[in-house]
Amino acid sequence: MTDEQVKGPDAIRVGVLGARGRMGVEVCKAVDAADDLDLVVEVDQGDDFAAVADSGARVVVDFTTPDVVMDNLRWCVDRGISVVVGTSGFTAQRLEQVRGWLADRPGVGVVIAPNFGLGAVLMMQFAAKAARYFESVEIIEQHHPRKLDAPSGTATHTARLIGQARAEAGLAPPPDATTDELPGARGAQVDGVRVHAVRSLGLVAHQEVLFGTLGETLTIRHDSYDRVSFMPGVLLAVRAVVDRPGLTVGLDALLD
Amino acid sequence: MTDEQVKGPDAIRVGVLGARGRMGVEVCKAVDAADDLDLVVEVDQGDDFAAVADSGARVVVDFTTPDVVMDNLRWCVDRGISVVVGTSGFTAQRLEQVRGWLADRPGVGVVIAPNFGLGAVLMMQFAAKAARYFESVEIIEQHHPRKLDAPSGTATHTARLIGQARAEAGLAPPPDATTDELPGARGAQVDGVRVHAVRSLGLVAHQEVLFGTLGETLTIRHDSYDRVSFMPGVLLAVRAVVDRPGLTVGLDALLD
Amino acid sequence: MTDEQVKGPDAIRVGVLGARGRMGVEVCKAVDAADDLDLVVEVDQGDDFAAVADSGARVVVDFTTPDVVMDNLRWCVDRGISVVVGTSGFTAQRLEQVRGWLADRPGVGVVIAPNFGLGAVLMMQFAAKAARYFESVEIIEQHHPRKLDAPSGTATHTARLIGQARAEAGLAPPPDATTDELPGARGAQVDGVRVHAVRSLGLVAHQEVLFGTLGETLTIRHDSYDRVSFMPGVLLAVRAVVDRPGLTVGLDALLD
Amino acid sequence: MTDEQVKGPDAIRVGVLGARGRMGVEVCKAVDAADDLDLVVEVDQGDDFAAVADSGARVVVDFTTPDVVMDNLRWCVDRGISVVVGTSGFTAQRLEQVRGWLADRPGVGVVIAPNFGLGAVLMMQFAAKAARYFESVEIIEQHHPRKLDAPSGTATHTARLIGQARAEAGLAPPPDATTDELPGARGAQVDGVRVHAVRSLGLVAHQEVLFGTLGETLTIRHDSYDRVSFMPGVLLAVRAVVDRPGLTVGLDALLD
Repeated sequence: MTDEQVKGPDAIRVGVLGARGRMGVEVCKAVDAADDLDLVVEVDQGDDFAAVADSGARVVVDFTTPDVVMDNLRWCVDRGISVVVGTSGFTAQRLEQVRGWLADRPGVGVVIAPNFGLGAVLMMQFAAKAARYFESVEIIEQHHPRKLDAPSGTATHTARLIGQARAEAGLAPPPDATTDELPGARGAQVDGVRVHAVRSLGLVAHQEVLFGTLGETLTIRHDSYDRVSFMPGVLLAVRAVVDRPGLTVGLDALLD
Repeated sequence: MTDEQVKGPDAIRVGVLGARGRMGVEVCKAVDAADDLDLVVEVDQGDDFAAVADSGARVVVDFTTPDVVMDNLRWCVDRGISVVVGTSGFTAQRLEQVRGWLADRPGVGVVIAPNFGLGAVLMMQFAAKAARYFESVEIIEQHHPRKLDAPSGTATHTARLIGQARAEAGLAPPPDATTDELPGARGAQVDGVRVHAVRSLGLVAHQEVLFGTLGETLTIRHDSYDRVSFMPGVLLAVRAVVDRPGLTVGLDALLD
Repeated sequence: MTDEQVKGPDAIRVGVLGARGRMGVEVCKAVDAADDLDLVVEVDQGDDFAAVADSGARVVVDFTTPDVVMDNLRWCVDRGISVVVGTSGFTAQRLEQVRGWLADRPGVGVVIAPNFGLGAVLMMQFAAKAARYFESVEIIEQHHPRKLDAPSGTATHTARLIGQARAEAGLAPPPDATTDELPGARGAQVDGVRVHAVRSLGLVAHQEVLFGTLGETLTIRHDSYDRVSFMPGVLLAVRAVVDRPGLTVGLDALLD
Repeated sequence: MTDEQVKGPDAIRVGVLGARGRMGVEVCKAVDAADDLDLVVEVDQGDDFAAVADSGARVVVDFTTPDVVMDNLRWCVDRGISVVVGTSGFTAQRLEQVRGWLADRPGVGVVIAPNFGLGAVLMMQFAAKAARYFESVEIIEQHHPRKLDAPSGTATHTARLIGQARAEAGLAPPPDATTDELPGARGAQVDGVRVHAVRSLGLVAHQEVLFGTLGETLTIRHDSYDRVSFMPGVLLAVRAVVDRPGLTVGLDALLD
């Protein structure tokens, strides 16, 4: 599947951990299809890790599981390999530990991102920026009906970013004269921001942030249909991490 | 303001009661601007009602108040004048009373409509029709933040129509795997339909009905900015009532 | 795969022609999953057609190719089997021929539909109905960038239905004061209706019909992500055709 | 109308030129309603300009006409009064002239903005930022049917910003396999960006920028209903100009 001969000598050598998982499979395909990246090793549960060292990988992408990701990270950092991590479960404590390992390795970079969807990340960035200029704001997220939580993690995170920006700008709560509410009609409140969760067959994953002031509204909407949508963000991180020593949390910091 | 000479001899002669109210003013303008309608008399509180009889009005439009509308209606029906009523406050009992008066007056028609917005009425019709074909449905209504009730009356009414259509079609409740809900996130329930009420500066009056089944969604959306939006519906009723003896409730019945 | 024992004795016995094609596979799954339908035979190129006769199928679903569909239809009609056809290529002449065959077979029904998406069909129905009440109307269709034609067939068909309804209602062309247009900005014209075709990665198949009058707009939007979205329409046709002798063209007629 | 006594001593003293024009009237109202701004003088055609000097205004807002705005600006700058200008007609040459005047006045600031709508300005900023991350982008602008130009100036300006960002990022043209196009269906091209202009009764001023990549889209939408929507931007400029010597063109620079 890898096709080293056609990639230029400057192509970044990339390994993938968790290469046979749902996300890993997509990552392998995406790296393989990129002209400036070389897929040099694919590892999954049961495979010999030594292959990673032998491959000469400069960057490793990790989509594994919370119970093995810390060992993977340590192993890579110790060998001077930079890492892009999409595996979940990173607490503040874990992040601190990774920072400690990197302190001794000035040439190594680690990017850990809870969400590699460029669209979602930009939506949150824009929402945080717009927040201070509009008295009103509400979030409407829409997902397939198999989803267990309402609102979604992305909606909750967006609401927090907005709430923080409003607090910093000294904004009062959004105007709302509602006196007669059927319970639930006005949504849930997250940091002072109303959030509405819609569930329907035919939907995948969508979110709309509506800002309003006198006479105008600004809407930022993200529609996601497929996990391939995460690949541009993964590749962006792979290309960025080689020039970015230390720990970077969130794709956000790479978008500038 | 009225300009009888340019209207054809077949133009319908129209009077307006409550002619100086917010809606009445718009009705006078709209009737006056229509080639096939003649504005022949404008009456408001304190004016002499005899002017209506003298004017030869064939149809009277009533945008007055609940305390006088029944007297107005009786007066018109007794004189053989058809009436289009936008005044609110019609209970089942009042409707029955009007039906009684009309029973003796085979040539007279009365149209009473709670909402003359064609867009809103069509939205409700279409929603009621689509309801039986989609497992999922939710309503998102969006209004200015001075609104007191949530959800809006239109949203509640739409939900009831949908709930009834689903019941008739024997549909199970919409699929929804939510187990972890922040209170209010999933909206209010009206006849088994989730309804979300958004409030923001910059909004006027908007409603979206989202239907979903496997792999597709159908959305019916209505945006209303101004009370002039009710005028096409009022004129439609004026033109229809002359050929429609008896009582007609709702614009719905005229849209076919 | 078929599971006859759990289906009730009243279940409709269904066969599928073109059972291994993209659509056929989905039809088999959908029939199999329906409590009131029995999947009794699956046939594709090279299979023995006699199996259909032996299976006792009451309805056959045909998603084959234009070169064999007429023979399939003839064969089924001659044996008293009703047919639901999704295969394309039906000219007026072909439809006439099918009508001829059915004339001698009073108990047999055939439903031929170019589009089994309930959402798309309802969108067109609603658009045709709303058309006469709004001075303004435009269509915006949005598709993936691999699409060859612009506008889409559905958009063109919708525009024709709207154009016809406007003509019947005697409406003037939509108001448009544009005097300074960059070529193409105002879209294409189909029967007097402006149609805009958007192409973007991340889109699948979407269409919006925007109706406007003074102070309000009504929008009917359809979003389709997957060919499974056609299955509810196919099943609806299977259930309807057994009580619907003669030829029915379009899903439209079944939605009432 | 001004109510100096309730404003704090730190309130910025503001004068309005063109105070009886459509925009000027709104500016006076908005300044008057702001706790931290004092409306100290209102001037229009025929009024004595000396009143501005006497009023002690620190900032003047100019919504006049292209033929008098340069004289107004010169007069204010010479007296050390900062100016916020919404009047149109500023060529590169005029801007250069203003810069020259300000060179000798280190404490004076001038903000000249073609558009004071925060929503529109943020939409353009966000669009310019997102542009480099998405292969596909199209603009759909929607306006009332009395508009003469298509596409709108805002849409054209947005397309230019996007085109420039794409060029800097080295992006290829958006993918588009269209081979069979009804003329105009794919919109107009502005700097390689497709722009679609929709015109309908019931619309005011709306714009949507749609970005797409594999499996996801990001949409930035602005809806404007009323010229009061420009007031937050005007007030933002008034507050900023006192700390911002020299010439600032566009609201953009103030949003950070």
